[in-house]
Amino acid sequence: MAGEFELIEHLLGQVRADRLTHPPVLGPGDDCALLKASSPDMAWAITTDMLVSGVHFLDQDHPYDLGWKTLAVNLSDLAAMGAAPRYVTLAAAIPPEDASDTTWIDSFFSGFMACARQYGVGLIGGDTTRGPRVFSVTALGEVLPGCALRRDRAESGDDVWVSGAPGYAALGLRAKLDHLDLPENVGTLAERALHHPLPRIELGLALHEVAHSAIDVSDGLLQDLGHIARASGLVATLRAEMLPAAPEGIDHALWRACLFGGGDDYELLFTAPPAARPSIQALSHTLSLPLTRIGYMQKPLGEGTIDSCGVQVLDAAQKFLDLALLSKGFDHFA
Amino acid sequence: MAGEFELIEHLLGQVRADRLTHPPVLGPGDDCALLKASSPDMAWAITTDMLVSGVHFLDQDHPYDLGWKTLAVNLSDLAAMGAAPRYVTLAAAIPPEDASDTTWIDSFFSGFMACARQYGVGLIGGDTTRGPRVFSVTALGEVLPGCALRRDRAESGDDVWVSGAPGYAALGLRAKLDHLDLPENVGTLAERALHHPLPRIELGLALHEVAHSAIDVSDGLLQDLGHIARASGLVATLRAEMLPAAPEGIDHALWRACLFGGGDDYELLFTAPPAARPSIQALSHTLSLPLTRIGYMQKPLGEGTIDSCGVQVLDAAQKFLDLALLSKGFDHFA
Repeated sequence: MAGEFELIEHLLGQVRADRLTHPPVLGPGDDCALLKASSPDMAWAITTDMLVSGVHFLDQDHPYDLGWKTLAVNLSDLAAMGAAPRYVTLAAAIPPEDASDTTWIDSFFSGFMACARQYGVGLIGGDTTRGPRVFSVTALGEVLPGCALRRDRAESGDDVWVSGAPGYAALGLRAKLDHLDLPENVGTLAERALHHPLPRIELGLALHEVAHSAIDVSDGLLQDLGHIARASGLVATLRAEMLPAAPEGIDHALWRACLFGGGDDYELLFTAPPAARPSIQALSHTLSLPLTRIGYMQKPLGEGTIDSCGVQVLDAAQKFLDLALLSKGFDHFA
Repeated sequence: MAGEFELIEHLLGQVRADRLTHPPVLGPGDDCALLKASSPDMAWAITTDMLVSGVHFLDQDHPYDLGWKTLAVNLSDLAAMGAAPRYVTLAAAIPPEDASDTTWIDSFFSGFMACARQYGVGLIGGDTTRGPRVFSVTALGEVLPGCALRRDRAESGDDVWVSGAPGYAALGLRAKLDHLDLPENVGTLAERALHHPLPRIELGLALHEVAHSAIDVSDGLLQDLGHIARASGLVATLRAEMLPAAPEGIDHALWRACLFGGGDDYELLFTAPPAARPSIQALSHTLSLPLTRIGYMQKPLGEGTIDSCGVQVLDAAQKFLDLALLSKGFDHFA
């Protein structure tokens, strides 16, 4: 592989072959791509994420998995907004050796495009440059503005729900870093959750009619629920006995740390009125996706002060758990 | 500055104060921002770029300048498409010391936002992470699809034009790296071109009616003109005597290298029919921006073969210059 333009041509070969249900007005190859909404009522939901080698992934991670995850984490933000994914741009810094021997970047790009195909997303532009391995994605989806799932719209009395199996991705990472031996079935699930997250697009779209607010769990359950609580001016109370129990053979404290603060779940956390419980249970069945009610939202006692908003966890004996003892989620500069 | 979320809050403080002529449906702070086009006829032009420390900039560069340039180079792609800039996202990897002492990142962000304000662009989302200094921007502008300036629409017989003063940015970089002493007036212009490029937004908008094709000069005049030529299936011929002459006191060979292959100009290179010459000259006057006719487009002799498309330079004696002797533009992996 000679240079930058050959590399781009080489990668775009895969892209042009794709058939999109919503082709852009103009695809990659010019100074800009051109897009139009599928209807004048639609708004574009837009999100951006950056993944850095040694921070978000390890160089020994499989590049196919990494490519998948690089796109999936962005689509998860679209899901959390209730948007239908349409387009994505990818900016990539890679070391010169990745350009001369394209094995690594080909595999990365295959994983990225597999995720794009699975969710019907078109790659419409990008940038490649020399540098340490860094990937930056911007994803665009469509949503009717009135249907968008915002984090500041939770209401007092709402139930708190979470999709899928939060905690497993963090367990998978912990097992890898600390060389833990997980029971085989748990290990398989944890590894899949860590390396092959499935953005909950269908769920986000279905929640238009049902949920008041939503966020995706990327930084840990407590931290992300805290974003909903503070943005909505409410207190979120989680009930310990309603939370997913530790998988068999997994230490209770380790599980709590993974569940509450682990992050990397890319599940949807949402709030909905109690009247919606039957619809949500039906939805869980339709989507073959566990949807677990784990708590509720209420007005803060010291109403009007933002400090009184946030998250608390009540155990079965009606005692508050000490959140300082639980991991508080991921902060890049903490 | 404590952590990631405090840093984001700190930076967004500047953003919320901005008044936009086209406010987004939903600004930063949720999983996604929400945008709507200003009219159903409009398309979104979208472009993305990544800037890496040690590749696109030096750590000793002034962070304010760097912030300006990080946004300006993206707006230049919108200009080249004839789009009106509207929104931008910024993903930033910065080392932990930039988060604990925010002097550098504050200055960077001030420069970035100064450019955003000058061009009426709203920052609608972003991401911050730990890492080596890497910035990735996605910019969105609006354009009527039929008015978009594409690189594949040049026509045989078109004139080739370039805006502003190409070559100066490369001269500024060369002077800095090689510790050259430039004449004072040249040095000032070169430094401004290198550190404070002005995306040619107004020109791009005005060219809707006039130009057949356009591109921005980011990788060098010859290379970027080559993109127009090949995409349009044509040969571009530059006339050496029509090109901007070397500034007084600057070596002829150095100037040619800067002009032809230097890059980083962020001027617009465009083609238009000869009948448009009076309009373009009037436009140059209105915008107080030099617009220089430097060559023409024609059909390749070996028509139908892409290899026969490209760029050639004719000197006053009607001899072709040896392009291998001229710098061929920037390639990240060459």
